[in-house]
Amino acid sequence: MPPFAMTLDFQRGGLEPCNNFIQRHLSDMRGMYVDEAATEAAIAEGDPLLYEVYQYDVPFETGQLLVVTTVIQPGKIGDEYYMTKGHFHEREDRAEVYLRLQGEGYLLLETANGEFKALPVQPGTVTYIPPYWAHRMANIGQGEFVFFGVYPADAGHNYGDIEKRGFAELLVEKNGQPTLIPNPRRKKR
Amino acid sequence: MPPFAMTLDFQRGGLEPCNNFIQRHLSDMRGMYVDEAATEAAIAEGDPLLYEVYQYDVPFETGQLLVVTTVIQPGKIGDEYYMTKGHFHEREDRAEVYLRLQGEGYLLLETANGEFKALPVQPGTVTYIPPYWAHRMANIGQGEFVFFGVYPADAGHNYGDIEKRGFAELLVEKNGQPTLIPNPRRKKR
Repeated sequence: MPPFAMTLDFQRGGLEPCNNFIQRHLSDMRGMYVDEAATEAAIAEGDPLLYEVYQYDVPFETGQLLVVTTVIQPGKIGDEYYMTKGHFHEREDRAEVYLRLQGEGYLLLETANGEFKALPVQPGTVTYIPPYWAHRMANIGQGEFVFFGVYPADAGHNYGDIEKRGFAELLVEKNGQPTLIPNPRRKKR
Repeated sequence: MPPFAMTLDFQRGGLEPCNNFIQRHLSDMRGMYVDEAATEAAIAEGDPLLYEVYQYDVPFETGQLLVVTTVIQPGKIGDEYYMTKGHFHEREDRAEVYLRLQGEGYLLLETANGEFKALPVQPGTVTYIPPYWAHRMANIGQGEFVFFGVYPADAGHNYGDIEKRGFAELLVEKNGQPTLIPNPRRKKR
């Protein structure tokens, strides 16, 4: 394949050209926010757009890389901030790098055996997601949260485990501040 | 290894923390600019700093990624713009992604069988360096040229081939404009 260039909009996250564009509405994430009544009410009121992903797909081969920008809207479902679905890589030993472009948020991470970590994402932040760590981003700001990512093209996604059980801690707004609290669903294990 | 965050200076390219910092002066690139007299004169006059590389080293294993920012100073040796050494990856099938942060330049690329390509790098440019393409960046602007890169940690570097023969075309200033001209050394093949 020949070399090529894309143009990235640092403010809005758009990638041009882009051959894989995804929009996630709240109805695509049913059951992932802990407040199910707030989820159903917001879906009934118009099913808000939570985030968009611009990715440039190249062959999903070892050695190739995928470029992706993500735009998370500001907002909450119940007390929980808008967030991405979160995933392990299907090849769990594949890392990922995120570079913050606009807004502010948190990167939530967890291993298969339950080790949890949260990293604040502010102007200039580059985060390194090592092999074996599931990852999810959440927007704690008033505007869009935009970040650039690169990961191995052979990584794949495994949403299943996280969709079922969620992360060990939830990122909620409490007294106006982003606060980590234990995930009540995880007590059931 | 645990997840971690770095802070990137978008204006100056610095990465903090950084565990692999490289400075390249002109004396580190003897023989790589076509004007050897201009090279020796500039080394005698103080051996200018051409570029700096901030990299965060993680284990050089398949699945891990290396984060790197590069700052190329403005200037020329003879008519050739300041540029990086350029390299193939030791594992030639490893790709690389660059995101422009400041300034303007060109990405020069070439395959082992001599196919050549030049991509302009301007505000918002993301470049994709596919497997098997050697790559070099050159600064055509008046200020520092700063870019962010990500590549597989098992890629390695092969400088040898490009150090010996150079790229098929040179990026020179001609009538005040960046201009590609055939590499006179390559006629000798």
